[in-house]
Amino acid sequence: MRRLQERILRDGRVLSSTVLKVDSFLNHQIDPELMKEMGETFAHRFREKGITKVVTLESSGIAPAAMTALELGVPAVFARKRKSLTLADDLYSAEVYSYTKQERNQISISRDFLSSGDQVLLIDDFLANGQAVLGLSEIVKQADATLAGVGIVIEKGFQDGGRMLREKGIHIESLAIIDSLSDQKIRFQKEDVTV
Amino acid sequence: MRRLQERILRDGRVLSSTVLKVDSFLNHQIDPELMKEMGETFAHRFREKGITKVVTLESSGIAPAAMTALELGVPAVFARKRKSLTLADDLYSAEVYSYTKQERNQISISRDFLSSGDQVLLIDDFLANGQAVLGLSEIVKQADATLAGVGIVIEKGFQDGGRMLREKGIHIESLAIIDSLSDQKIRFQKEDVTV
Repeated sequence: MRRLQERILRDGRVLSSTVLKVDSFLNHQIDPELMKEMGETFAHRFREKGITKVVTLESSGIAPAAMTALELGVPAVFARKRKSLTLADDLYSAEVYSYTKQERNQISISRDFLSSGDQVLLIDDFLANGQAVLGLSEIVKQADATLAGVGIVIEKGFQDGGRMLREKGIHIESLAIIDSLSDQKIRFQKEDVTV
Repeated sequence: MRRLQERILRDGRVLSSTVLKVDSFLNHQIDPELMKEMGETFAHRFREKGITKVVTLESSGIAPAAMTALELGVPAVFARKRKSLTLADDLYSAEVYSYTKQERNQISISRDFLSSGDQVLLIDDFLANGQAVLGLSEIVKQADATLAGVGIVIEKGFQDGGRMLREKGIHIESLAIIDSLSDQKIRFQKEDVTV
């Protein structure tokens, strides 16, 4: 998505060869117009999939997921993170390891909001190691729902998650795929539309 | 806001005389159309205030804040919660006590995203004891910005927060004010527009 790539180039800050900070428009401060355009783009790319529910993980996924859900005319659900393992009968839950924060979180969604008829579109702000998507897809499986696709705002193409998930046959659409952050430079993959 | 009140009556679940569960459309599953209408309503009510930034607290405030910011054409910023006190020079931060969870959280916003020229509209999903709004207004003060108003989705009129904040001269607009949850019944205040 050209406007996103331009914004990343303008306002993204390369903190290391693996860390890109985009908190001025994506995950701390939010540019709502850009979020809306991202939502329209995700909705367009998954329009034929018969999506019934958009699912994301708090907190940074919520704004793009809400805009996508608005455009598709379906509800959004955000999984909650908890550090402690709280077993509860009324929750689907899975464990997600964050390499960035080096901590293990329990993520969960109420059984009320996901069921076997659902065609689920997962939305997240970043894809790096793919652990969040794996955890969310585990929850989709517990609900006996169908994982129809995954929409990612920024994919770190130089990390393993995208390849690993695509090899599982998951349909991923990333709005921007970063090839490299070395030498303080942001380089995108030429094709940012992937199947 | 009539459509919100109708939705609360239809889908809200009264768990006790103080607890109303609205996780089917507001703070776990999200109805994006309703969120959009709430955003339009907040934007309309604060249109004359020259708002430059919408500020909220993760996670439940993000969707209504993003929709309000979209409508006003300004950025939204969500404060992050952390349990541990991490002092950092580049953050404004304040402490917020949650009566519901009986825990103290540190909330913070990067200094990059709030400054002295800002006219801030705070948005949150619930107002009960007013602790979250107090914490956020403390951050607004640290930034030397102006608190132009507070938009609340559901105010528990039978708890102290609303009165306490209005006595401080803060302009609060709540889309629905609940008078009582006793006897498993949801009763609204007649007037849901307040100044």
